[in-house]
Amino acid sequence: MRIAVDAMGSDACPVPDVDGAVQAARQANDTIILVGDQAAIERELAKYDRQGLNLEIVHASQTVDMHDKPSQVARTKRDSSMMVGMNLVRDGKADAFVTAGNSGAALALATLSTLRRIRGVKRPALTQSFRVRGKEIVVTDMGANADARPEWLVQFAIMGSAYARCVLGTENPRVAVLSNGEEEGKGNALVKDTIGLLSRTPGMNFVGNVEPKELLAGAADVVVTDGFVGNIAIKSMEAVAETLFNLVRDELTANPLTMLAALILRPGLRRIYHQIDPFEIGGAPLLGVNGVVIIGHGRSNAKGIKNAIGQARKAVQGHLIDAIRQSTSGYGDDGA
Amino acid sequence: MRIAVDAMGSDACPVPDVDGAVQAARQANDTIILVGDQAAIERELAKYDRQGLNLEIVHASQTVDMHDKPSQVARTKRDSSMMVGMNLVRDGKADAFVTAGNSGAALALATLSTLRRIRGVKRPALTQSFRVRGKEIVVTDMGANADARPEWLVQFAIMGSAYARCVLGTENPRVAVLSNGEEEGKGNALVKDTIGLLSRTPGMNFVGNVEPKELLAGAADVVVTDGFVGNIAIKSMEAVAETLFNLVRDELTANPLTMLAALILRPGLRRIYHQIDPFEIGGAPLLGVNGVVIIGHGRSNAKGIKNAIGQARKAVQGHLIDAIRQSTSGYGDDGA
Repeated sequence: MRIAVDAMGSDACPVPDVDGAVQAARQANDTIILVGDQAAIERELAKYDRQGLNLEIVHASQTVDMHDKPSQVARTKRDSSMMVGMNLVRDGKADAFVTAGNSGAALALATLSTLRRIRGVKRPALTQSFRVRGKEIVVTDMGANADARPEWLVQFAIMGSAYARCVLGTENPRVAVLSNGEEEGKGNALVKDTIGLLSRTPGMNFVGNVEPKELLAGAADVVVTDGFVGNIAIKSMEAVAETLFNLVRDELTANPLTMLAALILRPGLRRIYHQIDPFEIGGAPLLGVNGVVIIGHGRSNAKGIKNAIGQARKAVQGHLIDAIRQSTSGYGDDGA
Repeated sequence: MRIAVDAMGSDACPVPDVDGAVQAARQANDTIILVGDQAAIERELAKYDRQGLNLEIVHASQTVDMHDKPSQVARTKRDSSMMVGMNLVRDGKADAFVTAGNSGAALALATLSTLRRIRGVKRPALTQSFRVRGKEIVVTDMGANADARPEWLVQFAIMGSAYARCVLGTENPRVAVLSNGEEEGKGNALVKDTIGLLSRTPGMNFVGNVEPKELLAGAADVVVTDGFVGNIAIKSMEAVAETLFNLVRDELTANPLTMLAALILRPGLRRIYHQIDPFEIGGAPLLGVNGVVIIGHGRSNAKGIKNAIGQARKAVQGHLIDAIRQSTSGYGDDGA
């Protein structure tokens, strides 16, 4: 297997990107292709013992940054590490691409300029998985489509189910719609229409709607939502977790006695932190394009990059793209 | 001042409802009118020393429960504590109404059958305030309008600002729209259209959009959103806070040593808990109807009821309804 990694993706690139790639190369026999400024990558690689590792470099003279407009990168930065890396996948020279760069640009490049949509897929969806009580659940869309239609959400459910089966090993994944309650009149128009469609979709293990609390309790394996709501929900969760952790840290470091207590509790608090650390999972797979693409957070550390590469590896091994092609074919062959 | 309280509102009614009312009556000289089953209220009141307290009872023979359909209560339960209590406000016999009952029913009764919309208000909004670094911020709509229009959100901003000024004492409140980022293409159609309108609204201290993280950091005093997104965001925050607290509690009670640490940290953890305890604030004011209505969570405890009554008191003292009437008049006089 050959996995291309954007060496110029993260906010602190190429440091965590190269570090994570080296760690991933140590984990398995796959070839990791670092894409980006050759000199910068070589300088960074020189820090590591590369003995026995399958690491390659593909030079790209440009870098997409956070200020680049997603709609323009395909024209203005044709030799960016992001575009070059995706084209490696498109041309069969790599099996997957991992980037922690500008996610809007990655979405636009993957969807419109390089890999493009799988035939029949109306809109690709950015997908996130969480670990809940030792089990991963999938939330999709996470931000690719701020305004969505019910039929798109049905496809997100189909693609998210394929991810749960092929990558996470979940049999017959339970699908739910994220909503604000189960009482009469709850849910917005999109949710209500989507529930109507999902309950009539053949082969769909649809279990109804879930509130955020039930989502976190693992009431479903795949939770669908539009990209705006999904993004707000996940960012709300992250913001509270971070705020609470900061408050707890302040209390733990308040005086010598609380610092002693902190010492006692360190292993337990670390266990909790691992459960909510987004970099334990890696990145967000973009489902619905002709190739495995994992988009990590700009703040990704080396662990985040390493785990995103691990996700890409599992997606290739699990034949995710074939599964999505099969499960979405016939659903909407108009390509619209 | 006379505040009517639904004695049959909370899930555990009338216990916390009456307890909270008694506590509120002890705090100030106002009259608290308990509305509901007279015998049940009297039985509950007998537990307390009522000396010097201004407590009255208004009998209502019916109770709205969680299974009642909001659209039908006005017809099927005309003598419910909720409807009777709201009518006290409508008829000038009380200055405000507090309930921890079925919120959908409370919305429907207030908006369509009893107090009704303030002239010019397109849609009333359920409003929540949070305490962030010692300062309260207002989020509206929290769930009254799952599908909203940009003009409605502008009114939510106007009404939320009136609440921040009159009830929380915030001068020239900063208004923001809840969104998923500031980069190009972020926000859904509703958010983009609302931003356009808000930036042109005279007298509006509009500061742009905020992500959930900035909301929690206090980047704005009033944050507007549609009722679906607002509800999902707040429920996501609550769900994570609860999950984390449970995880921390499990670690604290893991063994005798961690229990010792827990003992040391108890005051600090209690401080944190107070910051996120929704019942510290009270309930959610329904803005846009002809009277002060505070809707508490069904799980409200006595403290939640007491604080909701305190909110009602401040809203009356701050002349909230007059302020909303003034600030929304002229905005949309069609009454549509």
